Amino acid sequence: MMDRGGLEVLSLDTCRRLLSETTIGRIAFIAAGQPVIFPVNFRFHRNRVVFRTTTGEKLDAAALGAAVAFEVDGWDEEARKGWSVLVRGTATEVMDPDELQELRSLGLSVWADSVARDRWVSIVPDEITGRRII
Amino acid sequence: MMDRGGLEVLSLDTCRRLLSETTIGRIAFIAAGQPVIFPVNFRFHRNRVVFRTTTGEKLDAAALGAAVAFEVDGWDEEARKGWSVLVRGTATEVMDPDELQELRSLGLSVWADSVARDRWVSIVPDEITGRRII
Repeated sequence: MMDRGGLEVLSLDTCRRLLSETTIGRIAFIAAGQPVIFPVNFRFHRNRVVFRTTTGEKLDAAALGAAVAFEVDGWDEEARKGWSVLVRGTATEVMDPDELQELRSLGLSVWADSVARDRWVSIVPDEITGRRII
Repeated sequence: MMDRGGLEVLSLDTCRRLLSETTIGRIAFIAAGQPVIFPVNFRFHRNRVVFRTTTGEKLDAAALGAAVAFEVDGWDEEARKGWSVLVRGTATEVMDPDELQELRSLGLSVWADSVARDRWVSIVPDEITGRRII
């Protein structure tokens, strides 16, 4: 199936597989009425996007139960092909001790480790969609 | 200089250089009250982010003079290093014939070419910021 932009519409299963195989994504949310985007090192676990963070904008949005978008993509510059998956949902901070213990066992280490990133944010998808240039 | 998250703050010159060297970025804007993110093949030209599109969400946001965020990043999974640049600004459709002629000369071909993408969107930055994991 193609969308009106001439891109292949990816199935939900394909979107989930691509999310599972990808480690860097980008979260967008509204801060002071304007959109912002930040990259995060994440895991797709139990149908949720989870990542570690410190206090700051990303956690503030999460604590608010904010509507967020999360995107992953992959590109082949030579072949001029690529895909992207968009998750729309709600971000919340994970507070449940059992859930936190499970998340800590995922082996999701942070790259920027000079500041402790021991808070966890979970994005519960309302919608997962994907497109591929073929 | 480091931010409170322990990331190196990139200079404006470095941000501009990274934007100039990158061909895929992601635009985020607010659609029906919620953020969305889409990848685009772009150029950084005369201190603006420009890309081609067809009618649809990306153009609708542009036509509204909407506040948008635009992000590029680069990663080295082995070294666990990376950088990202965030542009915050306003998206508008380019309508001026002279400007359109100049943009068409940039050689910005579209990858998804089954549908004509002959409308141009320009993001004029209010702010350009960048971070690097070192």
